[in-house]
Amino acid sequence: MLEVEVKYQLADTGALRQKLLDAKARLVAERKESDDYLNAPDRDFARTDEALRLRRIGESNFLTYKGPRHDRLTKSRLECEVPCPSGEEAAQSFLKLFEHLGYRAVSSVRKSREIYEIDRGGFTLHICLDNVEQVGSYVELEIVAPEEQYTQARDILFAVAAELGLNQIENRSYLEMLLGRAVVLGGVQ
Amino acid sequence: MLEVEVKYQLADTGALRQKLLDAKARLVAERKESDDYLNAPDRDFARTDEALRLRRIGESNFLTYKGPRHDRLTKSRLECEVPCPSGEEAAQSFLKLFEHLGYRAVSSVRKSREIYEIDRGGFTLHICLDNVEQVGSYVELEIVAPEEQYTQARDILFAVAAELGLNQIENRSYLEMLLGRAVVLGGVQ
Repeated sequence: MLEVEVKYQLADTGALRQKLLDAKARLVAERKESDDYLNAPDRDFARTDEALRLRRIGESNFLTYKGPRHDRLTKSRLECEVPCPSGEEAAQSFLKLFEHLGYRAVSSVRKSREIYEIDRGGFTLHICLDNVEQVGSYVELEIVAPEEQYTQARDILFAVAAELGLNQIENRSYLEMLLGRAVVLGGVQ
Repeated sequence: MLEVEVKYQLADTGALRQKLLDAKARLVAERKESDDYLNAPDRDFARTDEALRLRRIGESNFLTYKGPRHDRLTKSRLECEVPCPSGEEAAQSFLKLFEHLGYRAVSSVRKSREIYEIDRGGFTLHICLDNVEQVGSYVELEIVAPEEQYTQARDILFAVAAELGLNQIENRSYLEMLLGRAVVLGGVQ
């Protein structure tokens, strides 16, 4: 499956929340996510545009591989996510195993996320209002679709974004933004 | 923790089973294990003497990394095993994720295993009577111990092996034996 996704800067979270409710979007989850990103020993994921992360949502853990983005605008990419056993000990065990394999921790992205669902054109969109520590507020619109429906899914995403008045596209990942911030801070110290 | 382990060829499984019962060993499990071994994209585990495998015991799945052996005689090595969610679908998801990371399936080792426990010199030994498909019958004696107790653990293993009349040490892993067999078969076809 393909994760077709587009992200926008969010100036006014409250206003967007109201627009979502007006558009009959359903709030399906409200949670904190903490992502530990790893880099590979055989290639630099920053260069190959891949990602491997351990995500924690409360006690739940997930291991996710993301393939290179198909295009820079929509950030569409292959996503392979596998649930792991719950709890901090299990999370640490997986990180340890990857460390033995030569993977190195890069950075952690922490955010509060509200997830809304909305149906359009035969797809279910997930709309995530994110407040990312040290990064800021953004909204991600996402459809998980078979590869052959990429174009239709992308068009629906842009149509819904227009409907919600979103226009400041952000094509960097939160990890890229966080690392960019770290570099800038490092430069002025 | 260190997995201190020694393996012997087994000529007569029934006779050893009787000796274990005479020595008050406890049969703690009897099961089928299926191990899918993977090789890394950045190094050849056959050369570095490491291993990464997905083990299935019934519906249960475990991911295991094994570090290089400390010495060829006892096969002692670092072992990092993490439980994964149960079921065939979860097993396939993990294999798929590692495939995306560049890992390649090498071979599968399937065996029937009887696990006995016996206490000696402050350690609990696991004694595994293995019938390995395409390989044969072997017995593994194992102690999981902190690194600083390596010498004591190794000496206990050899003492118990002597007590059980075992003397034909086998220092190859089942995977090495299986791959060795495959090469020989390939050569005569």
